[in-house]
Amino acid sequence: MIDQLPHLSQLLKQLQRVPYLASKNIYRVAHHFLSLSPEQMRQFCEVLHTAHRELIKCPRCCAWQERAGNCPFCDSLRRDQTIICVVETWHDLLAVEKTGGYKGAYHVLGAALSPLEGIGPEHLSVAQLRSRLDNGTCREIILACNQTPEGDATASYVARSLDGTEVAISRLARGLPVGATLEYMDKLTLNKALSERRVF
Amino acid sequence: MIDQLPHLSQLLKQLQRVPYLASKNIYRVAHHFLSLSPEQMRQFCEVLHTAHRELIKCPRCCAWQERAGNCPFCDSLRRDQTIICVVETWHDLLAVEKTGGYKGAYHVLGAALSPLEGIGPEHLSVAQLRSRLDNGTCREIILACNQTPEGDATASYVARSLDGTEVAISRLARGLPVGATLEYMDKLTLNKALSERRVF
Repeated sequence: MIDQLPHLSQLLKQLQRVPYLASKNIYRVAHHFLSLSPEQMRQFCEVLHTAHRELIKCPRCCAWQERAGNCPFCDSLRRDQTIICVVETWHDLLAVEKTGGYKGAYHVLGAALSPLEGIGPEHLSVAQLRSRLDNGTCREIILACNQTPEGDATASYVARSLDGTEVAISRLARGLPVGATLEYMDKLTLNKALSERRVF
Repeated sequence: MIDQLPHLSQLLKQLQRVPYLASKNIYRVAHHFLSLSPEQMRQFCEVLHTAHRELIKCPRCCAWQERAGNCPFCDSLRRDQTIICVVETWHDLLAVEKTGGYKGAYHVLGAALSPLEGIGPEHLSVAQLRSRLDNGTCREIILACNQTPEGDATASYVARSLDGTEVAISRLARGLPVGATLEYMDKLTLNKALSERRVF
């Protein structure tokens, strides 16, 4: 039936490329867009276009910033530039930022190493990270990679790349999440919590 | 942090209005759009605009059709126009169509009655449905509303609106879904299956 509606199939094809849209919901989202008023439609596309034009990656930390403004992390005097939290993606940066407990700088690698997906070291912004250490301001780097095989490999790679620099390298604590009961915890996490136990 | 990036917050606001995009994923979808090449971005907006311009609701059955073409349901000689399947939404039409077992016409009401959401009889395309019966072609109407309180109310309302017409009115069978085991079936369904039992 859809093949008799070429404009609809093209719309569905475009929506299929949007991540995190379940294929089951694509028809409903298409229906939503088709049901918009011409004015709402114009506005949606304009906002999309403008955001695409006006937001760029910060050349230092690789997070999104306004083309006509400053990076909210690198150029803020209220943030401690002696410490850099290295994250895989921009969403990870937002997750750390939402805790409200971190006031240092960030560095977005852009991805995690994943040979299966064809993501190698050349896809990570490690050269930019190294060049940020040249002026000697930074004293500590926190490797805040995900606790996945890809995240572990990425953290090891970044740590090795920083060999020969004076900077201290740390990583996020591993162990029981807040609210966890030992009974329902997986073996690997409980093992880590045991082996990396801290003085009470 | 986001409030320092006005173009980003506007983009997020627009994406929040898209249904079936979990708010947790909006940042990832925004990142996806910002990372598109200018050419991909242009193409996405163009396809959206063109689809919005070229697809209209069929004035008879209210399903989407090409502005420059025929309705794939109303104007098809291969479909039985003596039977009309009445559904709440276009997605429901697609669900019936995917079964491959129905070759009649459709009628999309546009919504289900829902006083809580402010959806009253004036929002349903029941007048169009009645006018389709005037030429006497249609002999049966299948009320294929959802098995929800709203769907039941809608089906009753449509059935009452058709009082005085010659057409036969049926509804979808209720009972155990294929693959169901009695043990795990909810009471209401099992009750319906009992009270609406059929000759073996």
